Amino acid sequence: MQTFLLNDILQLEKQARTNLINSLSGVRTASLIGTQNGTGLTNLAIFNSVMHIGANPPYMGFIMRPVSVERHTYQNIKETGCFTINHVHEGIYKQAHQTSARYAVSEFEATALTPFYSNQIAAPYVAESMVKIGLTFEEEQPIACNNTILVIGKVVEVMVSNNLLDADFTLQLHQGQTVAAGGLDTYYSVNKLNTLPYAKP
Amino acid sequence: MQTFLLNDILQLEKQARTNLINSLSGVRTASLIGTQNGTGLTNLAIFNSVMHIGANPPYMGFIMRPVSVERHTYQNIKETGCFTINHVHEGIYKQAHQTSARYAVSEFEATALTPFYSNQIAAPYVAESMVKIGLTFEEEQPIACNNTILVIGKVVEVMVSNNLLDADFTLQLHQGQTVAAGGLDTYYSVNKLNTLPYAKP
Repeated sequence: MQTFLLNDILQLEKQARTNLINSLSGVRTASLIGTQNGTGLTNLAIFNSVMHIGANPPYMGFIMRPVSVERHTYQNIKETGCFTINHVHEGIYKQAHQTSARYAVSEFEATALTPFYSNQIAAPYVAESMVKIGLTFEEEQPIACNNTILVIGKVVEVMVSNNLLDADFTLQLHQGQTVAAGGLDTYYSVNKLNTLPYAKP
Repeated sequence: MQTFLLNDILQLEKQARTNLINSLSGVRTASLIGTQNGTGLTNLAIFNSVMHIGANPPYMGFIMRPVSVERHTYQNIKETGCFTINHVHEGIYKQAHQTSARYAVSEFEATALTPFYSNQIAAPYVAESMVKIGLTFEEEQPIACNNTILVIGKVVEVMVSNNLLDADFTLQLHQGQTVAAGGLDTYYSVNKLNTLPYAKP
């Protein structure tokens, strides 16, 4: 075991600290968040902080970095009141990663991912994604310690590939070749180990 | 593709809705959160909502369900001001899942996982875990829409197995057989696909 105390962490070179601390939350399915501004200019950004907030009613959230610089995802959500979350799979993870570059055009155009619109919300889905979630903005909670923001949406539309939906409605994410991200740049495939029964003493 | 609109979701049978909505956030490394109360009685609980909040200073968070019933993890954190996050690997995921049962004794005792103490914080680590993180309570943010709570801690100690630490300090989580959870009961192993370079246009 290698041990790092807080002072060791603070004294690490910046990129090393970023890599280590970003790894501590483990691997998480990479998601593309799709938005557009009031004039229809689209934006697509990769996030690995998408989280479950509640099932009834259905809420999901994600962490926005401080809006001290321009954050199109945040600004578009505040402007239009909606956004989409699209799971990344093995066929698109390189394009998904590439959305984190600074483009002068829409990331859809830059990465050749395909915008797709339902008639439910004014935000683009990623056509290639096998799990597409449409949300309306519900609330935001500012995080005092470092000015990040928890953004929460209500799920108003879910589109899933038929082969993912199990009889009990649990998604078989491995059948959609879901890709999980660890740290900032490492991508993982997943294999199902097991489904465990409801735990009782 | 199968489509569910909000009304479809709300009309699903409760367990089906829970399974579907919990699946939408994808797979995430399962973590065991270790705490104890003021008299040293330990608690261990599985969570899959552990998230990165910031790297400098290092902060992590997780979502607590409403404290309308007794939540030992939450009560212990408020009482002692600290907690541990311990990654779950393939060797302990069944025991980790079993911590979600309602025991009259400590989940350490009930599941035969081993408490381990450093001299930094008054909360038990899981000795078997290859990524152990000690945190002090930093802040909590109540989520208005459903009374869940975002709990945030400052990372004060990190212990990682030597074979996980890459030269750039990114953790090679697959080398520690990290286990990701999807939905409430499905567990996945991970395999590394790729490390991608910093994205530029």
